Amino acid sequence: MNTHPLAPLGALDIASQIENGVISAADALSLGEKVANAREAELNVYTPRMVPESRGTGHLAGIAIGVKDIFDTADAPTCYGSPIYESYRPRGDAALVSMARSAGATIVGKTVTTEFAWFHPGKTRNPHNMDRTPGGSSSGSAAGVAAGYFAAGIGSQTGGSRIRPASVCGASGYKPSFRLFPTVGMKHFAWSLDTPGFFAATAADNAFVASELSGRALHVSQSDETPPRFGLFESQIDDAMSKDMRAALAHAAKRAQAWGAPVRKVEEPEAIKLAHAAHAPISDFEACHALAFERMNHADLLSDKLRDYLREAELVTPDIYDDARRTANRARKASGLLFENCDVLLVPSSTGAAPKGLEFTGDSVFNRLWTLLGMPCVNVAGLADEDGLPLGIQIVAPFGQDAKALQAAHWLETRLTR
Amino acid sequence: MNTHPLAPLGALDIASQIENGVISAADALSLGEKVANAREAELNVYTPRMVPESRGTGHLAGIAIGVKDIFDTADAPTCYGSPIYESYRPRGDAALVSMARSAGATIVGKTVTTEFAWFHPGKTRNPHNMDRTPGGSSSGSAAGVAAGYFAAGIGSQTGGSRIRPASVCGASGYKPSFRLFPTVGMKHFAWSLDTPGFFAATAADNAFVASELSGRALHVSQSDETPPRFGLFESQIDDAMSKDMRAALAHAAKRAQAWGAPVRKVEEPEAIKLAHAAHAPISDFEACHALAFERMNHADLLSDKLRDYLREAELVTPDIYDDARRTANRARKASGLLFENCDVLLVPSSTGAAPKGLEFTGDSVFNRLWTLLGMPCVNVAGLADEDGLPLGIQIVAPFGQDAKALQAAHWLETRLTR
Repeated sequence: MNTHPLAPLGALDIASQIENGVISAADALSLGEKVANAREAELNVYTPRMVPESRGTGHLAGIAIGVKDIFDTADAPTCYGSPIYESYRPRGDAALVSMARSAGATIVGKTVTTEFAWFHPGKTRNPHNMDRTPGGSSSGSAAGVAAGYFAAGIGSQTGGSRIRPASVCGASGYKPSFRLFPTVGMKHFAWSLDTPGFFAATAADNAFVASELSGRALHVSQSDETPPRFGLFESQIDDAMSKDMRAALAHAAKRAQAWGAPVRKVEEPEAIKLAHAAHAPISDFEACHALAFERMNHADLLSDKLRDYLREAELVTPDIYDDARRTANRARKASGLLFENCDVLLVPSSTGAAPKGLEFTGDSVFNRLWTLLGMPCVNVAGLADEDGLPLGIQIVAPFGQDAKALQAAHWLETRLTR
Repeated sequence: MNTHPLAPLGALDIASQIENGVISAADALSLGEKVANAREAELNVYTPRMVPESRGTGHLAGIAIGVKDIFDTADAPTCYGSPIYESYRPRGDAALVSMARSAGATIVGKTVTTEFAWFHPGKTRNPHNMDRTPGGSSSGSAAGVAAGYFAAGIGSQTGGSRIRPASVCGASGYKPSFRLFPTVGMKHFAWSLDTPGFFAATAADNAFVASELSGRALHVSQSDETPPRFGLFESQIDDAMSKDMRAALAHAAKRAQAWGAPVRKVEEPEAIKLAHAAHAPISDFEACHALAFERMNHADLLSDKLRDYLREAELVTPDIYDDARRTANRARKASGLLFENCDVLLVPSSTGAAPKGLEFTGDSVFNRLWTLLGMPCVNVAGLADEDGLPLGIQIVAPFGQDAKALQAAHWLETRLTR
């Protein structure tokens, strides 16, 4: 199996160098700035770039963060990937942005999102192949971390908007449990699904950034070598995997076993099987309401793709929506069955490597179920397909067990490429 | 028991007069406009008033709506009751505002809210006594409906911000099940609790407005005379009731029985008892995050009361917060026990009539538990204390059974004052 180098700027490494006086916070910020200077003309990560000022206090001092442009910032335009919000300047910062700043991090730019974090693509390219999509919707945050612009990226996921771009860009991506991080000041697409989260070089870096930002004990233990018990989830959707992804998943399972981790097959419980179909009606119904203003007042400025989608989505009645919510709730209650013989699940992060072109950001089939169930997911980077393009493996843990997801991802990540 | 007249502008009545050609939509809008012209100088309902334009299509054509100023509007300043947002103009409308406009309603003004929908009061007075508070935080929407400015008001409740002002202003107030109506475009205080909802003259009017706005089958049946089975909830907090409120509750129970409704005592299950204490840590923890930007950047423009509160609230750790969320979840699961022998609960809407002065908007002790549990509540107006000030009785139904809550409130309301 081919391997792929992890993203260059490790947040933990930078923080430790600053703490030990090896570099200053300003030096740390300039590392990524140089990369951005060299590559931004081709990559289109930012919209717009900002002038970094080192804030200098807190554990995240010297850590540069790119923020997906669906989170409000008072000091930079916030456009949600739509011309409707061209040069819009909110009065306040999103809660997550304030939390990052409060922890000492420096917001170095707003990053490209697809239109309202849905499927109509932005202009960002995949840093590992200019002719391929970086995935969506958190395109800029994923590409920026993968290319080494900034140590961490803030993104969001409603379908597969963070784990998928992490997979195809070769970054670690962390989708926290639903509502663990606030969506206040974030443009909603579907409020029962929209989940903010992070990109970083490694699982340990993601855990570090998320911990410092939230005050939660999510840190990865470097000394804990206990192998997690992995579940190889067998689902009705597995046919959507590419040949390369199938090989990567088998490789990951084999490596895990070789390092002493039990890997057992996990069947899909009936309530979970039924839940796959519940994501679409929930997303459709809520999107119609979340974008009601834009549809009523600026329909001409929506992409054809989104306008057509919303016209179809409007057919979802409250009854269909309520049914889907009940189906999702039953699946959440049944999700304990997945973990009877394992700690975490091992599943694909995407159908395969980055699709060709920039028009199609990829299929979220391997992400939607976990978003719907609100379970924490981490993309483990480090593998590559025959062409050397990144392929990610996804760790899924029970709801609320984010530390377990991050620790297991760290365990696998550090062994996949040894 | 003294009675109190219901609010003057009935939305159903107006809609029917328009449908039958008795009045035009423009005439209907001018009804409330005249009242506002006469009383606004003393009542201070609006911030700011808007020039009504009849939109003219949809079932809510001719229905004037006042919108609490924590919901975004693109065509009027949105200040969240705080000088930090002075003359702020969001780019879009909140989802609920778009839904109202889409149904043909006319937004006639933004209404006074307490600071960020918390306890620091606005300038609105109680329409039934100028020296008393209209309650908070949805002060302007409650007072405006009670005074006859508009047929419906949009408000929100995090503790007791809608049912309490409805009670002391003498309006029907409807707090829907949690997340039945979208919070998109609303300034959050505590996202696990913030619940948008409505004021109107009667329960049937509230049901009409909420149905037309959402496309949900919430309409009250005028022909259904079936008496609901009432539960008289006996709680540890009952000592907080004033003498008058105790009399009003007893009177309501007696009237219900006289009209053939069974009224049975309902004891407080252990899991529910414990949940009372869970509201504060959840509200405290989330408020610190939801207002992180304001605290970091504009602490000098927060009221002393709110600044001191947030300083205390910051002591709530993620562990305390997570514990409170688990306590709340256990109570939600146990809430079925409340309805084993009744359809809806009968509880006070507030501790008593409107407190004197404008400084203290009142105690939300009889509202917080139901907000936390996400259960639908309706304030039934029509009774008054010895001084003729309104006193409201609250109907509480199981989660998701909003139609049942509204129907039971309608049943009681039409019989309380006959």
